[in-house]
Amino acid sequence: MFGAIYRLPEQIEEAVSKMEYSIAQFKASLVRTIVITGLGGSAVGGDMLRSYAADKCPVPIFVNRGYTLPSYVGKDTLVIAVSYSGNTEETLSAYADAKRRGAQVVAVTSGGILKKQAWADGYVVVTVPGGLQPRAAAGYLFIPQMLLLQKAGLLPDCGEEITETVRVLYEMRLRLAPQVKSEHNLAKRIASRLFGKIPLIHGATGLTETIAYRWKTQLNENAQTVAFAHSYPELNHNEIVGFDVPLELIEKIEIITLTSNHNHPRVQKRIEITMGEVLANTACGRYELPAQGASELAQMFSLLYVGDYVSAYLAVLYGLDPTPVDKIVQLKNRLAD
Amino acid sequence: MFGAIYRLPEQIEEAVSKMEYSIAQFKASLVRTIVITGLGGSAVGGDMLRSYAADKCPVPIFVNRGYTLPSYVGKDTLVIAVSYSGNTEETLSAYADAKRRGAQVVAVTSGGILKKQAWADGYVVVTVPGGLQPRAAAGYLFIPQMLLLQKAGLLPDCGEEITETVRVLYEMRLRLAPQVKSEHNLAKRIASRLFGKIPLIHGATGLTETIAYRWKTQLNENAQTVAFAHSYPELNHNEIVGFDVPLELIEKIEIITLTSNHNHPRVQKRIEITMGEVLANTACGRYELPAQGASELAQMFSLLYVGDYVSAYLAVLYGLDPTPVDKIVQLKNRLAD
Repeated sequence: MFGAIYRLPEQIEEAVSKMEYSIAQFKASLVRTIVITGLGGSAVGGDMLRSYAADKCPVPIFVNRGYTLPSYVGKDTLVIAVSYSGNTEETLSAYADAKRRGAQVVAVTSGGILKKQAWADGYVVVTVPGGLQPRAAAGYLFIPQMLLLQKAGLLPDCGEEITETVRVLYEMRLRLAPQVKSEHNLAKRIASRLFGKIPLIHGATGLTETIAYRWKTQLNENAQTVAFAHSYPELNHNEIVGFDVPLELIEKIEIITLTSNHNHPRVQKRIEITMGEVLANTACGRYELPAQGASELAQMFSLLYVGDYVSAYLAVLYGLDPTPVDKIVQLKNRLAD
Repeated sequence: MFGAIYRLPEQIEEAVSKMEYSIAQFKASLVRTIVITGLGGSAVGGDMLRSYAADKCPVPIFVNRGYTLPSYVGKDTLVIAVSYSGNTEETLSAYADAKRRGAQVVAVTSGGILKKQAWADGYVVVTVPGGLQPRAAAGYLFIPQMLLLQKAGLLPDCGEEITETVRVLYEMRLRLAPQVKSEHNLAKRIASRLFGKIPLIHGATGLTETIAYRWKTQLNENAQTVAFAHSYPELNHNEIVGFDVPLELIEKIEIITLTSNHNHPRVQKRIEITMGEVLANTACGRYELPAQGASELAQMFSLLYVGDYVSAYLAVLYGLDPTPVDKIVQLKNRLAD
């Protein structure tokens, strides 16, 4: 897992260069809605795209996590079916649904049944390199979706943002990699804060909501710990009231707030007041982590990158291997019975 | 709070009869997208509508929780601005955004600035009775939105489902109300399970995902406890791995799984295997709560109703008043400075 995390910037560069050809083949007709269907690590790229595109794309993007597609999906819908393995049963089911409805379909996968079926059905297939855990392939799974939308004229050119993102990640890993000691390694220090605690990751509607959820799932899968996520400003209307009882458990919650200077200024004000005043007398721990880089894309990936490392270091602190996901394998085997 | 919860079936009936006139005034032009903008208790109705309509509505429904609207909002978008108080600053900001973009706007509110502005701007205003906490007005806030979509030809007739929902809730409250002792009162028994624990509410993509989140926020606001929510099948791809560490805290998590016979059969299978086998050796508590009633709408509201009562009973167990939300008031005051 550490090797895959380290190689995220290379992964993004490779995604741009290797998948250019498949994306060039894609020709969209009129697209009125975009549905990205996937689960878990294969849905993260869709979440990030939805967040990134919310103020840029002329049509709505919906991330679908289930066996069927919403009723509005039709021939004017672009359905991007994402399954890293190509064998996720929910996604294969949703893919069949998309085909039945005559949607414009693109498959993003490393192989499996999805690749075979999409080829046979004559859809564009973006083949990503295999051999990783799906959650370790965030670059391979996100970048082609972004480029597909750009190709379809649904997103402005994002070349410069990708270039900045790669540069920021290369710089960051010099300070986050395993050989860098804790005193200089932010990810190791945050992992220490989370040891023995329940992590609660706060983002904000817009760029960081998605990344907060990514932290939660990486902490679940890599560190095998419970972890939760929520977002501003919504959490100001409910979750902040919920830190009174039971006191002995609230003391064990560590809130990590991901911030971005792309947040709406009132959201930034909300974060300041909530963290500095409203939750000042609650028992939970609190830590703010600002995004790095200038562009929206670089900021998203910078926060994701710290979270990936934090989750792997926390696994080490717990004496666990961050790679296997035994319970998911157990479930899949039983579902296949 | 107990009085408002008790009166939910009457609230739904009143919403149908009292708001008929405002809804009849609404005439939609071509609608390609629907955006419901609101926060906290004022967003719940939109969430429920999105879940309920996912397999019925010919256009996408998006619930927006923030200061601005997505870039695709334009004159072919129906924007429903929901603020129970009429003074939620995020919703007023999003309302102004909708107006600027020439969207088709309807306001749902008990009064405040939103009501004044929407009247002045010549939009349809659905006025709901005031004097409640927003979270206690779920019936008033949900039903008119459902009827608006029906009026616009975007949902099939839902009269029978509403009738069944009201009947189911009337029956349920005979067994859930405060005068019914714990041994016969499911909500009191679930509240006892949650006492001293961290509630984790699991729903499923489709009907119950939204209700699981409603339970979380009601537990936050009424019982002032920490609480979290997640949904099948997504949680099968991450959260289930996260119950290994830290063990002493995992023992304090109580999972309540909301089930519905409208779930996809493979989702139902996933719930069975996850609860019965995959999580069988983890330390967390587990309880399954099936929906009541036959229709989708009745099932959603039946699970919501139990959750509302559970949150209020848990407040009582903690010796707290379920009505005030001091931290939200403190935040609003500071934001107004």
